[in-house]
Amino acid sequence: MTPTDSAQKAPAKDPWDLPDVSGMVVGVLGGTGDQGRGLAYRLARQGQHVIIGSRSADRAEAAAGELGNGVEGAENADCARRSDIVIVAVPWDGHADLLGSLTEELAGKLVVDCVNPLGFDKKGAYALKPEEGSAAQQAAALLPDSRVTAAFHHLSAVLLQDPAVEKIDTDVMVLGESRADTDTVQALAARIPGMRGVFAGRLRNAHQVESLVANLISMNRRYKAHAGLRATDV
Amino acid sequence: MTPTDSAQKAPAKDPWDLPDVSGMVVGVLGGTGDQGRGLAYRLARQGQHVIIGSRSADRAEAAAGELGNGVEGAENADCARRSDIVIVAVPWDGHADLLGSLTEELAGKLVVDCVNPLGFDKKGAYALKPEEGSAAQQAAALLPDSRVTAAFHHLSAVLLQDPAVEKIDTDVMVLGESRADTDTVQALAARIPGMRGVFAGRLRNAHQVESLVANLISMNRRYKAHAGLRATDV
Repeated sequence: MTPTDSAQKAPAKDPWDLPDVSGMVVGVLGGTGDQGRGLAYRLARQGQHVIIGSRSADRAEAAAGELGNGVEGAENADCARRSDIVIVAVPWDGHADLLGSLTEELAGKLVVDCVNPLGFDKKGAYALKPEEGSAAQQAAALLPDSRVTAAFHHLSAVLLQDPAVEKIDTDVMVLGESRADTDTVQALAARIPGMRGVFAGRLRNAHQVESLVANLISMNRRYKAHAGLRATDV
Repeated sequence: MTPTDSAQKAPAKDPWDLPDVSGMVVGVLGGTGDQGRGLAYRLARQGQHVIIGSRSADRAEAAAGELGNGVEGAENADCARRSDIVIVAVPWDGHADLLGSLTEELAGKLVVDCVNPLGFDKKGAYALKPEEGSAAQQAAALLPDSRVTAAFHHLSAVLLQDPAVEKIDTDVMVLGESRADTDTVQALAARIPGMRGVFAGRLRNAHQVESLVANLISMNRRYKAHAGLRATDV
């Protein structure tokens, strides 16, 4: 190796060397829905400071009270403003409208989109294709001043919300454009026992991760399961 | 329960009660490529009768000779004609042309599409969206008289082809319209030690399964791995 080579090539960073996120405030927009409530509960149970957001501050506070573990409730804009990391767990229907209304509150924030655009008919669930490519890319387009990532798509809201379940045995695929941001989201996932955050590419590859929930729903029906995913050899 | 109820509701079939496929002949179109060669090798190693197909019978026979384990080589049309199950492992570029030319040979056959339509640029891999929705749906459109399924998308050709690797630790998502057909493909996957075939929905949900390979490529790069996927709680 020539001196030039060694100067150019920094040693590869250990992909499991993740930051400490225990002091960060996590907001959950759509935190009164099943997915949001489940994530809020799991993170708060590990000592994370969590604020759930809703259109109605009253509803958010009521749900927060039920979740316990120090969870707070607030109106969505207030939740966004007070949080370091903001998980977007709203129904796909309201995704664009909500994020479009919070561009200022979410400026500079690390946004974690976990929305799955799906349609349902009598044959089950199927993927919807957002004009922007995916829910995460729609979020990135609507929030040019935020750091948008995507994660937490494949979790069972039933398992997340069940206090008797001690471990959530699954990997969380984390997508984003910046290593620092995806590392932070991976670290957040790893706060939950049994869960691991795994980098899974850029936002342009979010659509298939979001849509895969349709396949998990088919699995759940066939196997009467709450299917999650693990990456092997990683 | 009234007599009418019991007459209408057959007991749910055990989803792991799969047929014996050990006597079936498996053809692999594109069997001289890395993925096809790897699958042919793994199945033949378990005693399955495998014929690999190629545009050139000579090339197919040469590759078959290298694989050993009784693998035969044949021109694609001949391979299709002589097989019960036909795995389609050609590059996406040649997918439509090849299948369009084999409609007669593939009539009545169980076709297993494992093609991943991907593009590549300096940022890595990304999903291509076939007009029909997915490679598998394209196959179904081109082969109205075949039984088209989709499976074997997420396997590492490196691991498949490495004789030192004893077990392939992964689940295979199997998609299709008919339970009998997906059961057969699941049984075929289960022939390979470590591998399990899991039903993962209808063909309209194949696109995200095919595209997910782009995310596995990102994982492989970050973690220097040959990532596979396991469904948890199934």
